[in-house]
Amino acid sequence: MSQLLYEGKAKKIWSMDGEPSMVRIEFKDSLTAFNAQKKGSFPNKGEINCEIAALIFQQLQKHNLSTHWVKNEGRTSMIARKVSIIPLEVVVRNILAGSTAKKMGRGEGEVLKKPLVEFYYKNDELQDPFVSDDQVLAFEICTENDIAALKSQALQINQVLKDLFLKAGLNLVDFKIEFGRTDKGELLLADEITPDCCRLWDVKTNEKFDKDRFRRDLGKVEESYAAVLGRLKEVMK
Amino acid sequence: MSQLLYEGKAKKIWSMDGEPSMVRIEFKDSLTAFNAQKKGSFPNKGEINCEIAALIFQQLQKHNLSTHWVKNEGRTSMIARKVSIIPLEVVVRNILAGSTAKKMGRGEGEVLKKPLVEFYYKNDELQDPFVSDDQVLAFEICTENDIAALKSQALQINQVLKDLFLKAGLNLVDFKIEFGRTDKGELLLADEITPDCCRLWDVKTNEKFDKDRFRRDLGKVEESYAAVLGRLKEVMK
Repeated sequence: MSQLLYEGKAKKIWSMDGEPSMVRIEFKDSLTAFNAQKKGSFPNKGEINCEIAALIFQQLQKHNLSTHWVKNEGRTSMIARKVSIIPLEVVVRNILAGSTAKKMGRGEGEVLKKPLVEFYYKNDELQDPFVSDDQVLAFEICTENDIAALKSQALQINQVLKDLFLKAGLNLVDFKIEFGRTDKGELLLADEITPDCCRLWDVKTNEKFDKDRFRRDLGKVEESYAAVLGRLKEVMK
Repeated sequence: MSQLLYEGKAKKIWSMDGEPSMVRIEFKDSLTAFNAQKKGSFPNKGEINCEIAALIFQQLQKHNLSTHWVKNEGRTSMIARKVSIIPLEVVVRNILAGSTAKKMGRGEGEVLKKPLVEFYYKNDELQDPFVSDDQVLAFEICTENDIAALKSQALQINQVLKDLFLKAGLNLVDFKIEFGRTDKGELLLADEITPDCCRLWDVKTNEKFDKDRFRRDLGKVEESYAAVLGRLKEVMK
C-alpha cells in the first residue's frame, strides 16, 4: 500500500508499492509564505507547478545535471528517485531581492557581478536561519566536500536555467533548491523548481511572475504561474 | 591640535600632533548593548578596560601577533597605530552562547569541537548583519586573501587568549575583534579586547565576568570587570 511519507506546505510525498527506491510527489494547490504565516491556494496550482517542475528537470537532465525526476504521472504527480534531503536550502542569486537585499541595505534589482550561493539551515521551528560554510561544518549539517558539490551543482543549474528563462523572456533573479542523496550516496537535485521558489521578472517590464505576487498581494497569481508554464512550453517545443 | 576623529559607543579616537600614523584611543565609562538600545556606565570602566586591553595586546605581541597597540598613556588612553578598519566584526566561538546558539536552537554552554569564526558586517544602521564568506566577496567588503588572513589571525589570537584566560581561571567562551590596515597595508588587530566584547565564564562556577552581566541585568558589573583585570594582572606578573 502506498503510504504518505511526508506532507509539506505545497507537496505530499508517497511511497510506491514494490519500488522502495522511488516516491510519488503530489503537488498541492496550496501556497504559503513567511514561514507559513500567510496561507493561500488557487485551483490548478498543483497541476501548473507539476508541469513546470517537469520541464525544468528535463532541461537540466538534458545538460547532464542529475535530478531526482523520473517522469510525471497524472496531472499533479511526479515519480522521483527517493533521497534523503540534505537539510540546507541552497539559494542562488543573480539579481538582489528579498532577504539579502534587505539585510545589506541594498535596493532590489541590483545585478550581482557573479552569482551568489547562500545556505539556509532547513528547520521550520528556527525559521530556516542563514548559515555560513563554517557554521554548516561546525553544526555538522554536511561535509566540506558536500558544500563544494552543492555550490558547484547550484551554479551549473543556475547557468542552464538562466539561459532557459531568458529565452522565455524572463530574468531568473534568484531561486531556492534542495539536494538529496540516494541510499547509494548519489547526490541529486530534489524537491522542485517552480515559481514558488524562484523570482522571475519579465525582461522588458520587470513584472513579477512568481510567488512575490502572492507574498506582496500583487494579484494575478494564477495567471502569472500559468504564463510561466506557457512561455516555457513555447520555448521548449 | 589633537582632533576627535571618531566617537564610538565606548571609545573616542583622537589624532596626535605631528604623528599622523598614530592615534590616541580614549576609553569611556559608558556601556551599551543591543545595538545601543540599552545604555549604562560605571565609574572607572574606561580605566579598567584600558588596562585590560593593554595587558591583552601585550600578551598577543609577545606571541608575535601584530596589534595596533603601542603604549598606554594616562589612566584611560592608549596610543595606537592608525589603521583603516575592515568593516567586519570577526567573532570566534569556543563555546556556544548568544545569537548563534539562539539561531541554531542550541543551549548555551555547548563546547564546539573546533573554534568557529564568524563575520558580521559592521553597519549600525543594518544592525551588523551576519554574513557568509561568499557574501563578503559579493558585496566587496574585503578580498578572498583578507578573509583567509582574518580567519588565520583570529584563530591564533584565540589560542593565545584561551590559554591566558584559563590561567586566570576563566573560560574564553567567545569574543569579537576588529582588524585594520595601516597606510602601508599592514594588517593589525585593532579596536580592543575587553569584557565588553568577550564572554568569560569562571572555570569552576560558570559565573559570568563580562558584558552579559549588564545585558542581562545580573548585577556586579563593575566588580566583574575589575576581577578580570585583577586576575589577569596576577597571572601576568
